Amino acid sequence: MVDIAQQFASDNYAGMCPEAWEAMATANVGHEPAYGDDSWTARAADAFRDLFKTDCEVFFAFNGTAANSLALAALCQSYHGVICSDVAHVETDECGAPEFFSNGSKLLAAPSEDGKLTPAAIARIASNRKDIHFPKPRVVTISQPTETGQIYSIEELQAISATCRDLGLNLHMDGARFANACASLGCSPADITWRAGIDVLCFGGTKNGMAVGEAIIFFNRSLAQDFDYRCKQAGQLASKMRFLSAPWVRMLETGAWLRNAQHGNACSQYFAAEIADLPGVVLMFPVQANSVFLRLAPELVDAMRARGWRFYTFIGGGARFMFAWDAEMRNVQALAADLRDLAGAQPG
Amino acid sequence: MVDIAQQFASDNYAGMCPEAWEAMATANVGHEPAYGDDSWTARAADAFRDLFKTDCEVFFAFNGTAANSLALAALCQSYHGVICSDVAHVETDECGAPEFFSNGSKLLAAPSEDGKLTPAAIARIASNRKDIHFPKPRVVTISQPTETGQIYSIEELQAISATCRDLGLNLHMDGARFANACASLGCSPADITWRAGIDVLCFGGTKNGMAVGEAIIFFNRSLAQDFDYRCKQAGQLASKMRFLSAPWVRMLETGAWLRNAQHGNACSQYFAAEIADLPGVVLMFPVQANSVFLRLAPELVDAMRARGWRFYTFIGGGARFMFAWDAEMRNVQALAADLRDLAGAQPG
Amino acid sequence: MVDIAQQFASDNYAGMCPEAWEAMATANVGHEPAYGDDSWTARAADAFRDLFKTDCEVFFAFNGTAANSLALAALCQSYHGVICSDVAHVETDECGAPEFFSNGSKLLAAPSEDGKLTPAAIARIASNRKDIHFPKPRVVTISQPTETGQIYSIEELQAISATCRDLGLNLHMDGARFANACASLGCSPADITWRAGIDVLCFGGTKNGMAVGEAIIFFNRSLAQDFDYRCKQAGQLASKMRFLSAPWVRMLETGAWLRNAQHGNACSQYFAAEIADLPGVVLMFPVQANSVFLRLAPELVDAMRARGWRFYTFIGGGARFMFAWDAEMRNVQALAADLRDLAGAQPG
Amino acid sequence: MVDIAQQFASDNYAGMCPEAWEAMATANVGHEPAYGDDSWTARAADAFRDLFKTDCEVFFAFNGTAANSLALAALCQSYHGVICSDVAHVETDECGAPEFFSNGSKLLAAPSEDGKLTPAAIARIASNRKDIHFPKPRVVTISQPTETGQIYSIEELQAISATCRDLGLNLHMDGARFANACASLGCSPADITWRAGIDVLCFGGTKNGMAVGEAIIFFNRSLAQDFDYRCKQAGQLASKMRFLSAPWVRMLETGAWLRNAQHGNACSQYFAAEIADLPGVVLMFPVQANSVFLRLAPELVDAMRARGWRFYTFIGGGARFMFAWDAEMRNVQALAADLRDLAGAQPG
Repeated sequence: MVDIAQQFASDNYAGMCPEAWEAMATANVGHEPAYGDDSWTARAADAFRDLFKTDCEVFFAFNGTAANSLALAALCQSYHGVICSDVAHVETDECGAPEFFSNGSKLLAAPSEDGKLTPAAIARIASNRKDIHFPKPRVVTISQPTETGQIYSIEELQAISATCRDLGLNLHMDGARFANACASLGCSPADITWRAGIDVLCFGGTKNGMAVGEAIIFFNRSLAQDFDYRCKQAGQLASKMRFLSAPWVRMLETGAWLRNAQHGNACSQYFAAEIADLPGVVLMFPVQANSVFLRLAPELVDAMRARGWRFYTFIGGGARFMFAWDAEMRNVQALAADLRDLAGAQPG
Repeated sequence: MVDIAQQFASDNYAGMCPEAWEAMATANVGHEPAYGDDSWTARAADAFRDLFKTDCEVFFAFNGTAANSLALAALCQSYHGVICSDVAHVETDECGAPEFFSNGSKLLAAPSEDGKLTPAAIARIASNRKDIHFPKPRVVTISQPTETGQIYSIEELQAISATCRDLGLNLHMDGARFANACASLGCSPADITWRAGIDVLCFGGTKNGMAVGEAIIFFNRSLAQDFDYRCKQAGQLASKMRFLSAPWVRMLETGAWLRNAQHGNACSQYFAAEIADLPGVVLMFPVQANSVFLRLAPELVDAMRARGWRFYTFIGGGARFMFAWDAEMRNVQALAADLRDLAGAQPG
Repeated sequence: MVDIAQQFASDNYAGMCPEAWEAMATANVGHEPAYGDDSWTARAADAFRDLFKTDCEVFFAFNGTAANSLALAALCQSYHGVICSDVAHVETDECGAPEFFSNGSKLLAAPSEDGKLTPAAIARIASNRKDIHFPKPRVVTISQPTETGQIYSIEELQAISATCRDLGLNLHMDGARFANACASLGCSPADITWRAGIDVLCFGGTKNGMAVGEAIIFFNRSLAQDFDYRCKQAGQLASKMRFLSAPWVRMLETGAWLRNAQHGNACSQYFAAEIADLPGVVLMFPVQANSVFLRLAPELVDAMRARGWRFYTFIGGGARFMFAWDAEMRNVQALAADLRDLAGAQPG
Repeated sequence: MVDIAQQFASDNYAGMCPEAWEAMATANVGHEPAYGDDSWTARAADAFRDLFKTDCEVFFAFNGTAANSLALAALCQSYHGVICSDVAHVETDECGAPEFFSNGSKLLAAPSEDGKLTPAAIARIASNRKDIHFPKPRVVTISQPTETGQIYSIEELQAISATCRDLGLNLHMDGARFANACASLGCSPADITWRAGIDVLCFGGTKNGMAVGEAIIFFNRSLAQDFDYRCKQAGQLASKMRFLSAPWVRMLETGAWLRNAQHGNACSQYFAAEIADLPGVVLMFPVQANSVFLRLAPELVDAMRARGWRFYTFIGGGARFMFAWDAEMRNVQALAADLRDLAGAQPG
């Protein structure tokens, strides 16, 4: 078990939330058919249909790497290109998984300032090459929230999907922290997905409070053809599927999915407010989800680490602090206090 | 939850055993580093090294499809062939996963009577074609126990591995029910793996009483080079890895892994003994693990199903009954009683 | 250069026919745009449209391995199955190329007596498994002529395509020696392709008298979407494409494609007639294309080889004699004479 | 046939040189064993061993896309990264072929000013990420000459290979125009390949005056293990291999390979000298091989195109003029004259 000083390095360090845990306990009683033919899995799929208020196709995969890569592979062929932001997780942290699952689709990364893709950037990449010597753009993937903690507004999403429609591109949303986006915007999940033109969403369960399990939701149902075979072949069909699906049932039915996200978001807001005015500390991006990126003076980075705080600096060299579903406010306060203390000690 | 009449259709229908569950509960307290850098995962790897009495390389994957396919892909290139039995799970029930993970390795299936590969069959396939128009045999995979519930003896394994060494073939063991083999033979796990020349073992956790999670154990450590990257790229690196590894720790440390298997084996022995002498009922294979395959008169198949019993007949048309780690003896008795009752009613 | 005794081992041993050669010479004058944007390639595509009397999509690949594998990959996804005969070249002699190009599609080989697939065999395999643990059948591939030198009649093809339509399967024809089939049936190429329900044909140029180059012809044009990208990515787009396409132009326009095939067929007919009545010699299959398969007494095999004759025995142990577009009749006569001589010397 | 105004757009527009043609004619006589078991192919391999003065392994592929992609796939696994320049052909113009052949290896493109990779750039990329969430760098590929017509000196190559050795990276050379590099440096081919630490070279035949056919030459022979199977599976084994290998024999034996390159280089030198001093015309890169890249005033681009001249501008917006093995000096003069004429007419 890590000490509190490490807890803000990643929202993957947290365990299961009580609702997910309870669902596991309940699902663990007795026997159930395997490979998704159980009652929990059917209920979970229906719960998603209720949440999104549409008759979507729902699948489950073990983790986000697979969920996103399988979805992208379903949306294009090996000789197609996938347009993404240059800080997109699929580009920077999946060890070539999208290329592997698709057997060679090339990621076409657009430079981005804040991690967001724009209609202009999409159009530029999509029209840059029209010859067969370069992968034909076929899919756009956006992360909601972005890897920088930014959130696409409904209007931004509509503009992107309009561009995609014009250009004949499928639109995928990497929702590893999708719940945080919903919590931040205070909108219906439908508003930032199918109503805004998203074809497929990967809805993250792990960071939301589960042990394993991401949902892949096809709003454009024709794209889901034979997707169950695709999951099976790629090693993503759980035999005891109920342990992936039951937590979703409970989290969706109780609203825990949203509360967990609201809590993480609130922690990041609190922390940002506490330290925003400090010398040597610059907020790199507006704080909209459960992360805070700080441009820190190098001395401050060292000093914080000397006090034991752990954080990554892989995006633009900034210090990233993540607030999980179970972040404890007193720990957040301790983090902020240390930063205030050290920043105050810096020559301003 | 399925009723008892369905519980012998598959040992995937059972839930988590108490030890696995307790480990999940313990592991769920607090934060832990992600992606296998946690203390549980290190402990689990060490527990396997203790169990096998050797310094093996240990990895974890979500399910058996992936574990076996990743291991096979590590043992050959796309233009190589994988020799297996024609009832091997990788050949018959993985939807082309080995071909997918390896980008095209062809499975070279040897006809088998009881599901076992023999040195002679391996040598025959390995020497059948020597030209570049056919995949070069490079790996042998055997299932221990086989899909028919047979168990390779230590001597049989040694003979197979000697053949593999002679022919320059790597040797992989699909141990989806490996614990049942150990329980049946009463030997050290080392005796039927590295001491018998196995290069890589996939040790099944799911059927042994876990929710998800198989261990991939490289006894030939040079074959494990960069295997962590392979797992990551293929969507098999769990972020909250502790939930895969902690159950292994507890199951290995408490001996539950073996007790669970012993129980399943005992149930199959009991059931087989109860019905072996019935008219219209023929044991297809010696009962060595936790399955019983019966050649039943067609009327008997129908009659049993009419009473609600569920079972598969995909291997040779035989009725397969599987006994999970939590099979209840009274239910086994009920199954046997119905079969006795119905068989007795048949014109002998 | 091989001596005449080797010339019947393969119809790949022959060089370019005069028409192909002349086209190369003509095409070699001056500069031409690359990658298929030249005038020869456009003419070749049109020549195929004329030949088939339909507005098909035409592509060129370097060899048959690639042509067939690319076509199959275009007709299915990695988790789909490809139904073929168990002596199909794609199954027995492509070193896993179809699996490689498709990233894992499994070949589902039907046992066949004479190399032909039947509607019944197709239906049996297509309906054998309906679960996601086995690749979903999606394509049927037939070789016309078969690897055993058999030719599907128009009626047989219609029956197969009707079955495919019923079962939702795409239908591919491996026409490595397609010209020989046309020559044998004396029908329009259209009659045994799109009019009989073939979706895609790979029309072999190499065995027909060219140096390199096979045509991939999509009668079902919707299946050709982005196929040019597929060829490019898979290393099958020739920069100096005219050297693949110009020979096609000349061969189609002059009728050499058909004359070459008629000659090979005539040689096999002649040879078969000469030796059909010999003791210790059994025709394995009716002689319909440019090959003759003989069941020879083992002594006869040895004796023929002792006289220097080279032939393969990889199909059913039979001796295969192939007659290329340029087989010389006096050599065929010498072959027959030796066989007569030796067979007569055998104890009858 | 294109008019002279198009002939400098690409050195792929030229046909076969007389030596290649003559070899084809000679090779076309009689029958030869298929799949590389012919005498021409053996002679061609030996000719390469003579040329490089070492016992290298030699293979032939149909085109450069395949040759480079197969070689790279042999040097790494799917989860590895391939370091290249950001103008490398494998990155910009192969439609994802390296990713396809390797089943997902990611190209890690280094920004480059003139198209060259440097030891510093290689080291920076190789050390940038050390975690399993990013492809592990395993191969470096350099183009000699580069896509910008630059040539690595012997010393530069030695420095690169020393860096590769230090970092455990294999080193591949894309020699689509390798002959032009030898002609430019006036050195032994050995000096800029194995003596300088290159593991594998793809030696381009097409641009050097052949119809099809590239040689893949493994100086590090252990990397060539089973490479023949890899070629076969990937559709790159020619049945009538002699038509790829015979031209190599004649071109190497007669020295045409070098003369052809010298001529192209000389044309580019001549052209560059003729126009280097013009207003509105800037040489983008030193002219070292058979290409000239010009930064032209936009009006000049339009004016040149209005006179019918065809050229690409895909690298840095510059006008690229390529001089093939058969470029006619009077046409080069006409090109230069038009540019002089138009540039003089520009407002200086």
